Amino acid sequence: MTTSREMRSARVDRAVMRRANLALILEHLQRSGTATRSQIAADTGLSKATLSNLAVELIDRGLVREGAPDRDGAVGRPGLALALDGSRVAGIGMEISTDYAAVTAVDLRGSVVRQREIPFDAHALGTEATLDKLARLAATTVESLRESGFFVAGATIAAPGVIEYDSGTLRLAPNLGWSNLRIVEEIERRLDAAGRPPITLENDAKLAAVAEYDTVFRARGVDDLVYLAGQMGVGAGIIAHGELMRGWSGFSGEVGHLPLDPTGRPCACGRTGCWEGLVGLGALLRRSAEEQDPIRDTRRLLEDRLAELHDRALDGEARILEAIAGVAADLGRGLSIIVDVLNPEIVVLGGYFALLADLMLDDVRDAVAARRMAQGSIARVEASALGMTAASLGGAIAALDPVLRDPLMVPTLA
Amino acid sequence: MTTSREMRSARVDRAVMRRANLALILEHLQRSGTATRSQIAADTGLSKATLSNLAVELIDRGLVREGAPDRDGAVGRPGLALALDGSRVAGIGMEISTDYAAVTAVDLRGSVVRQREIPFDAHALGTEATLDKLARLAATTVESLRESGFFVAGATIAAPGVIEYDSGTLRLAPNLGWSNLRIVEEIERRLDAAGRPPITLENDAKLAAVAEYDTVFRARGVDDLVYLAGQMGVGAGIIAHGELMRGWSGFSGEVGHLPLDPTGRPCACGRTGCWEGLVGLGALLRRSAEEQDPIRDTRRLLEDRLAELHDRALDGEARILEAIAGVAADLGRGLSIIVDVLNPEIVVLGGYFALLADLMLDDVRDAVAARRMAQGSIARVEASALGMTAASLGGAIAALDPVLRDPLMVPTLA
Repeated sequence: MTTSREMRSARVDRAVMRRANLALILEHLQRSGTATRSQIAADTGLSKATLSNLAVELIDRGLVREGAPDRDGAVGRPGLALALDGSRVAGIGMEISTDYAAVTAVDLRGSVVRQREIPFDAHALGTEATLDKLARLAATTVESLRESGFFVAGATIAAPGVIEYDSGTLRLAPNLGWSNLRIVEEIERRLDAAGRPPITLENDAKLAAVAEYDTVFRARGVDDLVYLAGQMGVGAGIIAHGELMRGWSGFSGEVGHLPLDPTGRPCACGRTGCWEGLVGLGALLRRSAEEQDPIRDTRRLLEDRLAELHDRALDGEARILEAIAGVAADLGRGLSIIVDVLNPEIVVLGGYFALLADLMLDDVRDAVAARRMAQGSIARVEASALGMTAASLGGAIAALDPVLRDPLMVPTLA
Repeated sequence: MTTSREMRSARVDRAVMRRANLALILEHLQRSGTATRSQIAADTGLSKATLSNLAVELIDRGLVREGAPDRDGAVGRPGLALALDGSRVAGIGMEISTDYAAVTAVDLRGSVVRQREIPFDAHALGTEATLDKLARLAATTVESLRESGFFVAGATIAAPGVIEYDSGTLRLAPNLGWSNLRIVEEIERRLDAAGRPPITLENDAKLAAVAEYDTVFRARGVDDLVYLAGQMGVGAGIIAHGELMRGWSGFSGEVGHLPLDPTGRPCACGRTGCWEGLVGLGALLRRSAEEQDPIRDTRRLLEDRLAELHDRALDGEARILEAIAGVAADLGRGLSIIVDVLNPEIVVLGGYFALLADLMLDDVRDAVAARRMAQGSIARVEASALGMTAASLGGAIAALDPVLRDPLMVPTLA
C-alpha cells in the first residue's frame, strides 16, 4: 500500500517539481556514478531541455560536474557525462560513546573525507568535559573542511540513547548516565555561531543502520534490515521498505532492554534482566576477565582492548572463549525475537560483535536458525564491515539528506 | 528521511501525473467527506481548470458525485460540493479462520455494505469443504453487490498464516493445519471466471491493522500502531509511518511464536514454548474449562461461546477468572517486547482480547507499564471496537486500494 500513498501525496507545483527534479538527477548520479544527459533524460522521463537547464543549476552550485566525453563516440556538449562533484559539499557525523568520540565527514559522492576518533572514559570525564571534547573535534573538522573549499551542509550528533527530535534532547542514555540533556544546544553553544552548520541529533544504532543501508545494502537490493550495535549498550536500527523506522517517539529498536536474562540482573535503565546485561560490551568484558585485567582498562583505546581479547581467544584462553560462546548463544536467542517481529532480510552485527565475528558468527547463526518457523522466515546474519564508528558515518550521510532533498540549499559558487 | 526519498521518486510524466492527481482528489474527499472545487483546488495546489476537468472523469466513473450547493452562498457550478459516491464501487474482504468464514464489502466511502459470517470447524470440515464454503460466501456477496449496481474492484483473502504474495500461496497456517496452499488459485477455480474480481491474499492480522488504521486511528493522527489479533493463533499487524509493514518476506508480526513459555509446550509451528500457547484462544479455553464444557464446543458460534465465558467470569467462576488473569499477565509480558522493538503509539488488542477487554485490559496495561524505560517509551493499549472479523473489513478496504491508486481502472458508467 506504499505506492498508493506515495502517489496520492504527489502535487503539481512548479517550485516543488523543480526541487524534486533536481533531487531526481542527484539521485540518479548517486546510483549511476556517471551518466550522460541523454541517459539521465531517458531514465527519469525529463525532457532533454529541462534536464540541461537543471544541470546548469547543479553545476553552478558545485553539486555536479561535467566529466570526460562518453565513449559511445558522441561529439559535442550533450555527450559530456555528468557526475556528482565530490569536492564541494560535505556532511558531518559526530558520535558520542562511553569510550570514545568520533567525527566523520563524507562528501556528496559518499567518500569519507575526514575521520577522527579520540578514546576517553566519559564517566571519568563528566558531562561538560565530554561535550567539550566532542565539540572541539567537530570544530577542527569543520574548519579543516572549509579550508579545503567544502560547504558543510550539516552535522548529526549520534548518541547512544533515546532522542527527543524537536528539541535536540538526549532523553535517556543509561550507559553514559545522562538524561534530558539538550545536547544540540550544548554543542551549538561550544561552536562559533557564525560558522557552524545546522546540527541535528539521532540515535547511534539508527545512524549505523543508515550507514549500512546507504553504503552496502541498498545497492544489493536489500530494503529490510536490522543493524544491531554491540557497544556498552545494545540497540537496533531498523530499515523497513528502505526507510529508517524511528517509531512513534524515537524509541524503536530499544532491544537492549528486552527481558532475556533469567537471573534478573539490575540494569542502568531501571529495569532488571535486560538483554544487554548478557550481551553488551560490559557483559563480555566482565565474563572474559577480572577487573584489573588490561582488556578492562578504560584508558586504553577500545579497539586495542578488543584486539587483545581477540588474540587471547585465538590463543585458546578458556575464560574468554567461554565468554564469547555464551554471548553468541544469548545473542541468537534475542535475535530470533527481533526476526519474528520485524522479518528483516539481513541482520547486520555491528560494534564489537563485528570485531569478534570470526569467533561468534557461526554460533549466532545456528541459534537463530534453530528457531526458524518456515523457509523464508529467517534472516541472514552478517557482520558489519564499517567498524566501531559506523554511527558517525551514518550521521555524516544523514547530514547530507537536506541537500539531496533540496539541492537549492547549497549556495552558488562565487 | 522519508520525505527525501518520496520526493526523489517523483517523476514528470503526464499520464502518471493525471492518475496521481485523480487519486489526490479522491484522497481529499476521503478525508474531508465533502468539499467544493475551490476548497480542493486550494488544498491540492491544482488549478481550478485542471480540477474541473479531472472531476468530470471521476463523476463519469461514478467515483464522485455532485452534492448540495455549499452554504457560503456561492451560486453556479463551482459552488456545487463534491463528495465520494458510495453507490458504485465496492471492495470485498474474505476471511478464513479456524472457527468461521466471514465476508465483508465496503463502498468507496468506507461504509460496510455487506457483512456475513458462518461458523464452522475448519479441522472437521477439511480443506476442500472449507474453501468451498468461503468461495460460496464470496460468490453470493459479489452477485448481490452487482445486482445493486456495484462494480466490484477486487477481493482480498485474509488468512491466519504467512503469505507468498506473488503466487497467492498460504505458505504456513499452523492453526488451520495448512501449508503451501495456492489459495488464490483455489478460490478463483471455484468462482465463475467471467464475473470474478481480481483476488489477492494477505495475512489476517496485517489486514486487521489496516482496518484499525483506516477506520479509526489515521483520523486521530496516529501513524504507528500494532494490532494484536487474539484468535487461536496470535499475530501482529504493524503500521509504521502510516504504512503497512510486511517485512522482507511477509513474516513480520509473527509474534505468536516468540519463546515466552518457560514450560516449553510444543506448538503447531514446530517450535516449543511459543507465546500463543499461553495467550491464544485455545490456551484461554483450555485454562478456563474442561474439554466437554459448552464453551469448548466448536460447533457453536465463537462469539456465543466467548459471550458465555464472559458471563460466567462476571458471575465469579473462579477457574475462568484465573485463566483470564493469567492470560493478561502473559499478554503484557510479550507486549512489552513488541513495544521495545517497534515503539508504536498504540497497541490495539483485537479478536477475543477485545471481547474480554473489560476483564483484562487494566492488567495488561499494568504489565506493560511495569517495564517502561522512560516517559514516552510506552504505548497506549486499547481494545479494538471492530469485532472478531476486523480482518475481513481490512481485506475489503485493501481491495479498494487499486482504485484509489488508479481511479481510471473503474469503467465509465454506460
